[in-house]
Amino acid sequence: MVADEIPGFWAVVPAGGAGTRLWPLSRSGSPKFLHDLTGTGHSLLEQTRDRLAPLVAERLLVVTGAAHEDAVRGQLTGLPGDAVVAEPSARDSMAAIGLAAAILEHRGAEVMGSFAADHVIPDAAAFRAAVAEAVAAARDGWLVTIGIEPTFPSSAFGYVRQGDPLAGHPTARQVVEFVEKPSVPVAEEYLATGSYRWNAGMFVVRPTVLLDLLAEQDPTFAANLRTIAAEPGRLPELWDRLPRIAIDHAVAEPAAAAGRVVTIPGAFGWDDVGDFDSLAGLLGDEEDCTILGDSSLAQVIGASGIVVPRSGRVVAVIGLDDVVVVDTPDALLVTTRARAQEVKKVVAALKDQGRHDLT
Amino acid sequence: MVADEIPGFWAVVPAGGAGTRLWPLSRSGSPKFLHDLTGTGHSLLEQTRDRLAPLVAERLLVVTGAAHEDAVRGQLTGLPGDAVVAEPSARDSMAAIGLAAAILEHRGAEVMGSFAADHVIPDAAAFRAAVAEAVAAARDGWLVTIGIEPTFPSSAFGYVRQGDPLAGHPTARQVVEFVEKPSVPVAEEYLATGSYRWNAGMFVVRPTVLLDLLAEQDPTFAANLRTIAAEPGRLPELWDRLPRIAIDHAVAEPAAAAGRVVTIPGAFGWDDVGDFDSLAGLLGDEEDCTILGDSSLAQVIGASGIVVPRSGRVVAVIGLDDVVVVDTPDALLVTTRARAQEVKKVVAALKDQGRHDLT
Repeated sequence: MVADEIPGFWAVVPAGGAGTRLWPLSRSGSPKFLHDLTGTGHSLLEQTRDRLAPLVAERLLVVTGAAHEDAVRGQLTGLPGDAVVAEPSARDSMAAIGLAAAILEHRGAEVMGSFAADHVIPDAAAFRAAVAEAVAAARDGWLVTIGIEPTFPSSAFGYVRQGDPLAGHPTARQVVEFVEKPSVPVAEEYLATGSYRWNAGMFVVRPTVLLDLLAEQDPTFAANLRTIAAEPGRLPELWDRLPRIAIDHAVAEPAAAAGRVVTIPGAFGWDDVGDFDSLAGLLGDEEDCTILGDSSLAQVIGASGIVVPRSGRVVAVIGLDDVVVVDTPDALLVTTRARAQEVKKVVAALKDQGRHDLT
Repeated sequence: MVADEIPGFWAVVPAGGAGTRLWPLSRSGSPKFLHDLTGTGHSLLEQTRDRLAPLVAERLLVVTGAAHEDAVRGQLTGLPGDAVVAEPSARDSMAAIGLAAAILEHRGAEVMGSFAADHVIPDAAAFRAAVAEAVAAARDGWLVTIGIEPTFPSSAFGYVRQGDPLAGHPTARQVVEFVEKPSVPVAEEYLATGSYRWNAGMFVVRPTVLLDLLAEQDPTFAANLRTIAAEPGRLPELWDRLPRIAIDHAVAEPAAAAGRVVTIPGAFGWDDVGDFDSLAGLLGDEEDCTILGDSSLAQVIGASGIVVPRSGRVVAVIGLDDVVVVDTPDALLVTTRARAQEVKKVVAALKDQGRHDLT
């Protein structure tokens, strides 16, 4: 199935999250989605826009923190001025995606799909094909999630459990439940059943359906979002009253329990690039030393892993397996793929030491 | 034995060698001896001067490359103008030390001792006591070397084999031979005999004795050195005619064969700091992560080895044993203590690539 532009379909791109485990590349002032993490010459945000553009043309709505609004607009040139919505403060994914839903309902959008700004999907065509199937199901009133085929028993992702096929939509399956990040042994059991897929946080739905599902759980939340959409001047006043809650808990889990969620299988590689280990796995294989950046700056002898030369300096790495070396103008990280998660301890220590310039 | 100032004794300090295996700290334009490698706040050259000063006061002669003359004078403030001799080009240790011997013979010095500018000797008092004994033996006409007690079977150092005690000098022993750097198994055999000591390249001798020993092997070499000392204006003309040969081969080995060398045992720690492995061993123990520089710049979690933060940037190291991280403003090295020797391959590669700014 080749997916061309889908009339009435809007893409929502929540651009949030600091990406602490990708320090020192990613900082609170310059989060992950603004960076070219895959060596394509384009940031993850730009790649997300480019991946969606054939489906939506200019029908794109990015929701980001006020601190990043200028950077987002700077990267997404050519978009209409109202394509970027700035959150006064971070209030988790339900507020961000819910506000987008209210704005799009107000604009008369038929279907929306929400896709994070900082995920990596190498096969854009397969992605778009799945989205087109999801839109078709969403038009029938379902909350649709795209379930990624798991390639290993990850403990870093949540899962969605598939139930019966959905009549009229050949690949769609009912969703029995969403489950939180499991341990590796539990994830292994999930994979053995063949019924579980990774929850990549991609939701496709009619804006009105999403807001009505929210209203069933928290009528005030949904009402405030709709008020903001109708009277944008009230955003500063009402925003701080919105609960901090993830869309999974606020809407997806109760809707699944009520039998109102379906999933479309995503037959494409996907990664949320949580840390340098996953980035190294995404960009190279076990034997390689991946250079993310100007390879003429790297002098590698008998080493594997990932080297990120981003300061313009020569980086020499000798005799280390699965190493992670990230060189930026004001901070350097040296660790291993296995210990890459612990970089958040460094960020915490730097915050404790008042080095907010570095975090 | 406490060593006070020794009248008539001059110290010669050959300050040469690039220290390629200490890249990127050490460069051809800024060699090892100009750097503070031990975190004392003083360069190895300054430490060498300070270690010798109680014995010689201002009777010091530094022989260095013309390219480093200004840097040497900048570090050794307060010395007379004729305390630094600049070699027009590098011609190995016999030319450097021989020129110093000829100059000192011309000045009427009684005894000279040659001590490299880039060695580390933590116990300066024990060093000076050994030098005083060496001077006493040298006054009797011997070529005297200080033999360091080996602490492990090193394959990185040459050895001196001791023979019979020397009458009249309680600790001195005849030298049977000098031997080149052995393999580790051969070094183990040496240590088992109890007769071998490390050759640290410290020679104490009357200048005239040294030049006459050289003249026995190469009369022209010795004559040219004496001509330069008498007519300094002829240095540029005669220097390039001097053979490139180490003092060990030119004088020490044949003199030992002729029974004219004695050794004084040095009961002090010594290291020539050949690479970052030896530097790490010198500054810390196996469990430690040594920070050479501003420790507030280092964020170390579960790592051992040596971290050198010299660019002002924060350096975070997580989960690596025996690691070597050297951070300078224009180049970064990441390796292990076991692979530290291979840094010379990086320097060679950079030279091949025309990056002379970095080597």
